[in-house]
Amino acid sequence: MVYQKAKTFYHSEFEETLHTTGLKMALYVYKFGGTSVGNVERIKAVAEKVKKAHDLGDQIVVVLSAMSGETNRLIGLAKQMQVHPTERELDVLISTGEQVTVALLSMALHELGCEACSYTGSQVKILTDSSYTKARIRKIDDDRIHADLNTGKVVVVAGFQGIDEQGNITTLGRGGSDTTAVALAAALKADECHIYTDVDGVYTTDPRVEPKARRLDRITFEEMLEMASLGSKVLQIRSVEFAGKYNVALRVLSSFKEGCGTLITYEESQMESALISGIAFNRDEAKLTITGVPDLPGVAFKILGPIADANIEVDMIVQNIADDATTDFTFTVHRNDYQRAKSLLEQTCATLGARKVTADDSIVKVSIVGVGMRSHAGIASTMFQALAAEGINIRMIATSEIKISVVVDEKYLELAVRALHAAFKLEQGSED
Amino acid sequence: MVYQKAKTFYHSEFEETLHTTGLKMALYVYKFGGTSVGNVERIKAVAEKVKKAHDLGDQIVVVLSAMSGETNRLIGLAKQMQVHPTERELDVLISTGEQVTVALLSMALHELGCEACSYTGSQVKILTDSSYTKARIRKIDDDRIHADLNTGKVVVVAGFQGIDEQGNITTLGRGGSDTTAVALAAALKADECHIYTDVDGVYTTDPRVEPKARRLDRITFEEMLEMASLGSKVLQIRSVEFAGKYNVALRVLSSFKEGCGTLITYEESQMESALISGIAFNRDEAKLTITGVPDLPGVAFKILGPIADANIEVDMIVQNIADDATTDFTFTVHRNDYQRAKSLLEQTCATLGARKVTADDSIVKVSIVGVGMRSHAGIASTMFQALAAEGINIRMIATSEIKISVVVDEKYLELAVRALHAAFKLEQGSED
Repeated sequence: MVYQKAKTFYHSEFEETLHTTGLKMALYVYKFGGTSVGNVERIKAVAEKVKKAHDLGDQIVVVLSAMSGETNRLIGLAKQMQVHPTERELDVLISTGEQVTVALLSMALHELGCEACSYTGSQVKILTDSSYTKARIRKIDDDRIHADLNTGKVVVVAGFQGIDEQGNITTLGRGGSDTTAVALAAALKADECHIYTDVDGVYTTDPRVEPKARRLDRITFEEMLEMASLGSKVLQIRSVEFAGKYNVALRVLSSFKEGCGTLITYEESQMESALISGIAFNRDEAKLTITGVPDLPGVAFKILGPIADANIEVDMIVQNIADDATTDFTFTVHRNDYQRAKSLLEQTCATLGARKVTADDSIVKVSIVGVGMRSHAGIASTMFQALAAEGINIRMIATSEIKISVVVDEKYLELAVRALHAAFKLEQGSED
Repeated sequence: MVYQKAKTFYHSEFEETLHTTGLKMALYVYKFGGTSVGNVERIKAVAEKVKKAHDLGDQIVVVLSAMSGETNRLIGLAKQMQVHPTERELDVLISTGEQVTVALLSMALHELGCEACSYTGSQVKILTDSSYTKARIRKIDDDRIHADLNTGKVVVVAGFQGIDEQGNITTLGRGGSDTTAVALAAALKADECHIYTDVDGVYTTDPRVEPKARRLDRITFEEMLEMASLGSKVLQIRSVEFAGKYNVALRVLSSFKEGCGTLITYEESQMESALISGIAFNRDEAKLTITGVPDLPGVAFKILGPIADANIEVDMIVQNIADDATTDFTFTVHRNDYQRAKSLLEQTCATLGARKVTADDSIVKVSIVGVGMRSHAGIASTMFQALAAEGINIRMIATSEIKISVVVDEKYLELAVRALHAAFKLEQGSED
């Protein structure tokens, strides 16, 4: 394989070299999720990890989620109060979860003799719009954090939360702590943003489906975005977009195991990229087809308009000319929306005088992702050949610049993933 | 008895009269403690009570404590992190308790169709000094609260917390929610500040000691201060001082029972006050005496200086000339400080060449309190006579303008309280 190891970057060794040679003091943003701060012992373990990095002379900003289960506990209380909790108040309530963990971690750091100072989103301040429960960050004041870092303190920031222009508390939506970490890394011009999770990196595919799946040392932002949107739930997609936009080097690592994780970076021109980085899949798809639609201008809008109006998200869209005067139109939706989409489409079918609607909710989408396919022909044919060799019928195909997705029957999911993993020799990785 | 009922003020009737006659819209600050918001059902009950008052047309600001047990739970977590938790971080941590309850109550009010908006101390904002865990309020911005009240909303404020000039979260110390409520009532020029607790008012003495103890309809600030400082734990003493200073009418009521509670007001000149309002007592005292001290200028300072330097608070102080050249000096301290104070005093005894130190930690202080004693002679003799009639030996006497305290042997506490309660006919109250 062409995946090069030349620039592989083992964090801790690298760091120690830098420090022993006195070359550089780095600034890192570390983000720990709810599982990593799930109890007193784990918070203490995080403190040990942070202190170790700080002792090397780095400047460390830590972003924390709430203790695992806490946000759900608070939402449970809210729902006992109000069937549909007022969103402003829900944000006031659930933002307490991170406020608790940042205070506790700061104490644990003090106990280890490491100066630390906690900040809520409001204190930083992390200015957002006023979309309660799903706010977007507008601006981050970094003065106080830099001042603290320059006096040698570790700064501990509550993830997931901010404050709007009027001083109302806001939250960024589930997984928003990743977004906080990336936004802080961008604002502070951090060297790297480390996302500590319960997995030790990004894999070529889900190891539960293909045990030969291999951890990637690095992956590009574009590939990560495709992997994330295709159901690889390592990182929240918004935080990856944010990192790409602001050129933040993201690293996914395990909170519990040592290792250098997976670095998510811009594609670097001097390195030959792997053809294919990974195989993603999505079990939540359903497919809808309307056939024999009179082929007139605006027909796609007439078909998808009612679907969009019903707030149903459409994923893949394929249109074929069936014969001279009619067209077939196929798209996929989330399985939760399958029944609603189907009945809307049946109404459209009658309105347009189309032939019929066929629908299938036992299909899955399997995708190969890799920036390398931009410059290499033959990727698609390798993919189709591998699936054909296993007798897997392809029901639908969609492509983007760095991704090819196929829809296959649900029963073939594992077989398809393993066949593709083998065909692209993903288990061999950079040693190849 | 001369305690007049003429101006007794039954809140709910009074309010309804005002509203039906369209005379006045009142502004009330309601404070509910931890027991009153201890679980989901109780928060809902508070919402019902608040809505009822709001429906009458009043403007209502609610101040809440954390759910009972929550602050202790958080402190427990803190102590697992750090033997002596950093105070700044402790305040970040424990201030979440009230943030949770204000959000939940606002939701419960919305569910009842009553518009409400929650505020943290930082949002109000309640500006304090930077003395973490025991901050003092400096200034309250009332603009946003008045704006919300004027649009018909109930405003729900987190008690116990504030923010300093640098934006650090502070807390006001245990019982600080009372202080928040009173300070808000002063800033907003509220008509009354209602403190809802698990008792239904201020009693002539502790009903557990004297079952004939009677709830007072009203009590003056000065009397309340003496009662509070003498161990009647209905209100935090700071909040009473604050209320007196800013002329806030305080009312103590039960969260669980209907009733008009006890109104704490300025002494009003047109009403004849009761001679004695109540009997307070304190079981936590210990008595120290140094005898045969050479009677020279500065001797009191030489005795109490080392005690003050050791941060031991002294309560009562009595000095007698024993003979021509020496003096006896007695004071009381909290029993927790008894051993330390005793050994300090023994050192002082040697230094000064005094005769000896005697000490006793099985004594209690019993006090009669009442603004009426200012203008009535004979109160002290009634008191001493009542104690003598029961054979109770008085070990020490101290007086202030509205209080007479005696120290007696611990075993006589209940007997002394009941004897005094009867002697001053406190069980008969304003009907007398």
